[in-house]
Amino acid sequence: MSGMQIIRSRGELQALADAERGAGRRIALVPTMGAIHTGHLALVEEARRRADRVWVSIFVNPTQFDDPADYDGYPRSFEGDLRACREAGVDVVYAPRPEELYPPGAQTWVEVSELSKPLCGAAREGHFRGVTTVVSKLLLAAKPHVAVFGEKDFQQLALIRRMARDLGFDVEIVGAPTVREADGLARSSRNLRLGPQARKQALALVRALDGAGQAVAAGERDTVKLLAGVRGEIAKASLAEIDYAELRDPESLEPSPATLAGPALLALAVRFSPDPDGRGAEVRLIDNRVLLGL
Amino acid sequence: MSGMQIIRSRGELQALADAERGAGRRIALVPTMGAIHTGHLALVEEARRRADRVWVSIFVNPTQFDDPADYDGYPRSFEGDLRACREAGVDVVYAPRPEELYPPGAQTWVEVSELSKPLCGAAREGHFRGVTTVVSKLLLAAKPHVAVFGEKDFQQLALIRRMARDLGFDVEIVGAPTVREADGLARSSRNLRLGPQARKQALALVRALDGAGQAVAAGERDTVKLLAGVRGEIAKASLAEIDYAELRDPESLEPSPATLAGPALLALAVRFSPDPDGRGAEVRLIDNRVLLGL
Repeated sequence: MSGMQIIRSRGELQALADAERGAGRRIALVPTMGAIHTGHLALVEEARRRADRVWVSIFVNPTQFDDPADYDGYPRSFEGDLRACREAGVDVVYAPRPEELYPPGAQTWVEVSELSKPLCGAAREGHFRGVTTVVSKLLLAAKPHVAVFGEKDFQQLALIRRMARDLGFDVEIVGAPTVREADGLARSSRNLRLGPQARKQALALVRALDGAGQAVAAGERDTVKLLAGVRGEIAKASLAEIDYAELRDPESLEPSPATLAGPALLALAVRFSPDPDGRGAEVRLIDNRVLLGL
Repeated sequence: MSGMQIIRSRGELQALADAERGAGRRIALVPTMGAIHTGHLALVEEARRRADRVWVSIFVNPTQFDDPADYDGYPRSFEGDLRACREAGVDVVYAPRPEELYPPGAQTWVEVSELSKPLCGAAREGHFRGVTTVVSKLLLAAKPHVAVFGEKDFQQLALIRRMARDLGFDVEIVGAPTVREADGLARSSRNLRLGPQARKQALALVRALDGAGQAVAAGERDTVKLLAGVRGEIAKASLAEIDYAELRDPESLEPSPATLAGPALLALAVRFSPDPDGRGAEVRLIDNRVLLGL
């Protein structure tokens, strides 16, 4: 087997995509912003199951940061990322320069109007427009048969599915299950920034999701009661403050009816304060589960 | 040679595109809204010179009409269009149903922010957003190597070039020269709606462009003087009213400097009233010429 290719040029990537497609080989793309952790590697495994070639893009996308300081401070670990990709058997890493994806005078935006408004979109002006724009550029660069995204970022996944369907991208958008720590907390590079006490309390999200799942299994369909249970569980964590806790249609993201009759996405975003002794930073965590799923 | 294929399904078109590309054959796409006339056929000829396969899309795009009545009243002549395409040697006609390009709940827009604002964009809210969105969908459906657009719609062409470059579509956007009537008037289906007197006066656009071209050839570089000449020429036509007459950078569409130092697009939009005896309709004509071009 030949080594992993690192490609900087879109034209080169497109030519390789044409060659692979022409030879009948399936390409799966895993878009990342680098800082690769085990969550990403699960996406790579999912990609491997679905294609002959696994391509990972590494690009810290400036247009999805609402705060320029966040962009500047975003962890960059290119050499480590390459090593992780190589060990995971990735075939191609696409690492474009910012000027390639945003050439001088760039002014074209891909926007999903309704799905980008609620939940995480409400607080982060322009964030999802940046996401859908850069994902369009990555799909046009790599021409994959499949693109894999984590289910943890459920709203991002719903937006990208909608975008791919609306514009007619010739790609299958695949959601990969959330990877969790041993105790159940959804894997995120932010977990490391929690203080020890906040890290323990963060399990409130998992307990809230589990509790709602059990209630639904026991026959509860009343969304007000289900959400009251969720809020009660999170309220037990003294460092936690709910950003949102909502039941929504998994595809349209519209609020679920008062009585659940089909699949409903329970979506949580919770802010944790630093520990009382000052350890840790303020960290916003998200998690979700589909209730009444197939 | 096999007959012309008429394809309704995007999936079928994408599969054919993959097969053609895989076999090393170049595809050129000519997007149209039907009502095919000699102007379109010149685009087909240009496409033929640049590719092995010529594909024409026929789709009256609802989202680029600012007035629903215009959309309903837009001329539809599918059988005649197919005949014209067949005679011109077109290989594939892609004629999607509206629900395919705009599925229920569609809410994704491709927008070029700055270039869509001035000139024809100022009067037509949302028009160019509809154009760039549907052209994105057509490019994703046909996966062409080349797409051909008329230079008469210079702003549309500039927008599509910018969009293709910004998003990184693997396609060459080609502008084809404006086709003209024997007397020089730019070919448009709207010309037939001019009254006989307005039809004669419509040549004021050509005379204005010619006059500016001659002035520049004689050394004039002052934009105020050039535009005064243009306005004076149009003013001689009693039925004409200028919508805009401007000198702009051909690529960025920014206003030209006071003294021309490089290529400048002279862009005209002029409204003609019906003839005094009531014949003809109100018709808005556009035309343009690059001055000091290469």
